[in-house]
Amino acid sequence: MTRKTCPEDVVLRVLFCGIDHTDLHQMRSEIHTTSYPLVPACVYVSYDDQIANTQWHEVVGEVVELGSNASKFAVGDTVGVGCIVGSCGECSSCKSSIENYCSNRIFTYNDIYKDGRPTQGGFSSAMVVHQKIPEKLAPEQAAPLLCAGVTAYSPLKQFIGSETALKAGTLGLGGVGHLEAMGHHVTVISSSEEALKHLGADAFLVSSNPAETEGASNSIDYILDTVPAGHPLQAYVSVLKIEGKIFILGAAPKPLEFDANDMILGKKTITGSFIGSMHKTEEILEFWEEKGLKTMIEVVKMDYVNKAFERMERNDVRYRFVLDVAGSNLD
Amino acid sequence: MTRKTCPEDVVLRVLFCGIDHTDLHQMRSEIHTTSYPLVPACVYVSYDDQIANTQWHEVVGEVVELGSNASKFAVGDTVGVGCIVGSCGECSSCKSSIENYCSNRIFTYNDIYKDGRPTQGGFSSAMVVHQKIPEKLAPEQAAPLLCAGVTAYSPLKQFIGSETALKAGTLGLGGVGHLEAMGHHVTVISSSEEALKHLGADAFLVSSNPAETEGASNSIDYILDTVPAGHPLQAYVSVLKIEGKIFILGAAPKPLEFDANDMILGKKTITGSFIGSMHKTEEILEFWEEKGLKTMIEVVKMDYVNKAFERMERNDVRYRFVLDVAGSNLD
Repeated sequence: MTRKTCPEDVVLRVLFCGIDHTDLHQMRSEIHTTSYPLVPACVYVSYDDQIANTQWHEVVGEVVELGSNASKFAVGDTVGVGCIVGSCGECSSCKSSIENYCSNRIFTYNDIYKDGRPTQGGFSSAMVVHQKIPEKLAPEQAAPLLCAGVTAYSPLKQFIGSETALKAGTLGLGGVGHLEAMGHHVTVISSSEEALKHLGADAFLVSSNPAETEGASNSIDYILDTVPAGHPLQAYVSVLKIEGKIFILGAAPKPLEFDANDMILGKKTITGSFIGSMHKTEEILEFWEEKGLKTMIEVVKMDYVNKAFERMERNDVRYRFVLDVAGSNLD
Repeated sequence: MTRKTCPEDVVLRVLFCGIDHTDLHQMRSEIHTTSYPLVPACVYVSYDDQIANTQWHEVVGEVVELGSNASKFAVGDTVGVGCIVGSCGECSSCKSSIENYCSNRIFTYNDIYKDGRPTQGGFSSAMVVHQKIPEKLAPEQAAPLLCAGVTAYSPLKQFIGSETALKAGTLGLGGVGHLEAMGHHVTVISSSEEALKHLGADAFLVSSNPAETEGASNSIDYILDTVPAGHPLQAYVSVLKIEGKIFILGAAPKPLEFDANDMILGKKTITGSFIGSMHKTEEILEFWEEKGLKTMIEVVKMDYVNKAFERMERNDVRYRFVLDVAGSNLD
C-alpha cells in the first residue's frame, strides 16, 4: 500500500462485498461506459499498478487507519462504500443532497478519482467512506443495501413520502422487504410464481398472462422496476391507478417502450431513479436495523466468484451473492 | 329540437368550433375507440336520429335557453364546451377536481350520455356547459383553448407550479404563447426551422440533427410533447436537465420509446397528461384574457371542412383551424 493516507482518507480491510447485475453490464460494456482492461472481481491488482479496475461497489469493511480529518469514524468501525466515492460538492444536485446526480460524481470503480488515478472498487487500497454500518446490522447483511437496497428505497422516500396505505408492485423482485416494512401491500410481478413463496409477498401477478394483467388494471399505486434488460412497459403501465408511477431502477441496454394513450388518460408517470444519496443510504441502514429486516443473501468465498456470476446470469440465486472477502484467506 | 330542456341543461347556438388532430385519429379509429358510424363534421345529424356522432369538442356558443337549475349562466352568455360533458362526481379524481381522469367521464362525442343516448359533439341539440368565456376574449380565439390550449396548460400548473425562471421546450409546437406569458424561455424543438419565425419562440432546436441535440444536453427543464404520432424520445430525454420532465400530451397510435439509462442517471420523468379539468379551463381562459394573448388560427367556413382536414394532416395550417359555424348559413 504505497498511497500515503491523506487527511480525508479512511483505510479499510474489506470484509464483505455484494455482487450486482450492473457488474455484469460493466464486464461486457453493455451500457457503453467500461474502460478496459477491467478484471471482474480480480483481487490482486494493486492501486499503483493501475493496470485494471476491479468492479465491486457494495463494500463493507473495517476501519484500520484514519486520515487526520476523518473524524466521523474510528479505527475498528464497520463502514460501507456504495457506488460513488466522490462528487463536486458545488452543483445544484450536491447542494440539494442528491449528490448521486452530480454530473461530476466519481464511481467506485471504472472511473477516475480526483488525483487522476482510476478508481478500483472494493480493492482500491484506499476509499472515500461515508456510511457507518449500524451495530446491530451484520456486515454481510449490510452489503447489498449499499447499492441494490438504497436503489429500491430512495425513490419511495422522494416521490411517495411517508404514506402507508399504498399498493406496491415489484418487477424484478427488488425491495419487497422494506416495502412491506413500510406498511405497503406488495404484489410481485414476475413471469415465475416461485418468487411469491420465497419472498413472502402479499400477492402475485404473472406478467406474461394478459388476462391476469387486464384483471389487475387500475389497482397499483407504484411499481419498482429493477429489471436490467429491455422490456415493454405497456402491461405494467396498465395496472397502475390514476396518477400511478413506475420507477425505472435497472440499467437496460435496449430502449423501453410504453403506450402513450394509457399514460395520458391515467396521468401516469415513468421516472428514473439512480441509486441513492448518502443521506438515503444512512436512512435505509437505520431503517433496516430498526425493523430487524434481513436481506436474502447467499454468502460465498472468493474462489466461487466466477460461478456466482454464471448463476446470477441465469437468475439462479435467492436473491443476492455476497462475497466473504475477509474469510477467503487471500493473503 | 325534441329533447326537453332538463334542469341542468344549457341550450346553445354554436358559434365556432376548433378542429383538432384527435378528430383525425377518431375518424380512423387510430386509438381504437371509435363507435362508427361517425360523420366527421357532419352538421345535419339531429340528436334524436342517433344515426351518427359528429366529432367536435372545442365548441363555443351562445346560450339561447336555460334549464331551471342552470343558474351559473344567462341567456346571451358566450360559453364553451371542451372534450368532456360529464363525470361521476364521486370518485377520488372527481373529488380532487381532476374530473378529466374520472373513469366514468363522458366525452363530448363518440360516447354515451347518462340518458343512454350517444354524445354527438358540437351538434348535439343540448350539451353540458361549464365554461363561461371571458368578455374580452373573442369566441373564435377561445375555441382552441378548450382542448388544445388547456392540454398544454394543465400539466404546467400541476407539476411546475408558478416557477418562472424555467427553460421550456415544445415538441409539436403547442403552448408557445402561454409558456412565454408565464415568463419561461421557450425552445421550439422541431424538424422544421420555419416554426421559429412564425411562433416567435426564444430558441430553436432541430431535433433531427444529433450534433444539435447533443450540444443542448442538460439544458431544458421540461418539454411539452404534443406530437400525435409515434416518435422515439431518446433525444428529447437527453436535452433535459437533472429532474427534467417530458409531458406526453398527444395521443399516439404506436408505442413511444426511451433510453432507461438516461432516465435513471438524470432522475428524469415522463408523465402523461390529459386535457384539463374545469378549473384549469377556467384558469387558462382568464389567463389568456388577462395577458391579452392571441391564438394563431385560420377561421374557415363549414364548406371548407374537408379541405381543412386534408391540410391539417400535412401540417399545412398556422396553427389551428376554427370553423365559423354561425357564419356558415347552415339553416
